[in-house]
Amino acid sequence: MKKVNYKDVGGECPEDCKKLRFKPLIAEKSGAPNFYMRLFEIAPGGNTPRHYHEWEHEVFVVKGEGKIVLEGREEKLVEGDAIYVESMELHQFVNTGEAELILICVIPKPEHD
Amino acid sequence: MKKVNYKDVGGECPEDCKKLRFKPLIAEKSGAPNFYMRLFEIAPGGNTPRHYHEWEHEVFVVKGEGKIVLEGREEKLVEGDAIYVESMELHQFVNTGEAELILICVIPKPEHD
Repeated sequence: MKKVNYKDVGGECPEDCKKLRFKPLIAEKSGAPNFYMRLFEIAPGGNTPRHYHEWEHEVFVVKGEGKIVLEGREEKLVEGDAIYVESMELHQFVNTGEAELILICVIPKPEHD
Repeated sequence: MKKVNYKDVGGECPEDCKKLRFKPLIAEKSGAPNFYMRLFEIAPGGNTPRHYHEWEHEVFVVKGEGKIVLEGREEKLVEGDAIYVESMELHQFVNTGEAELILICVIPKPEHD
């Protein structure tokens, strides 16, 4: 068993993000063989990139409120929402609230590992 | 994209659990190809089974406090903890607080699917 609290993990703001801290929680170095867990802390007004990729996302809204922007539509997000974003689907997460938006995002292990 | 709020999902109390509601959030019917997201609502005094199995767990503590009981030791859990439980590792989650303990638990897609 390995345990870490996200508040103890340093965050980075990747390229194409805005007011966001990306925190890997469970990954290759944890010994995880199949999928990795990451956390996004998005400040008010911040967002993830608007992009698409081959791998799917499984996301959970831990705290805050926001929206997911898709191809031609968007949907509101609130605490307790679980979101499945499929392979090659255009998507962007945006904080529309006045507090932090905290998301768990699980991805399959990258093929290059 | 598929979205569901855990409060809208019916919960079951599986065998060997106590004061627990198990809620599938993202699974085969969502189209998820690699791993599934579930949520556990554990009332004060409740727990998951003490068991082990071949598949790993990636767990996130959304709300509440508790402990994870392992082989010969246990560790306190608080909000924001991410826990990696490896294959064949004995484990049990217990609510030791006075409020609900809410956990996200991600597993690989079962081989029988």
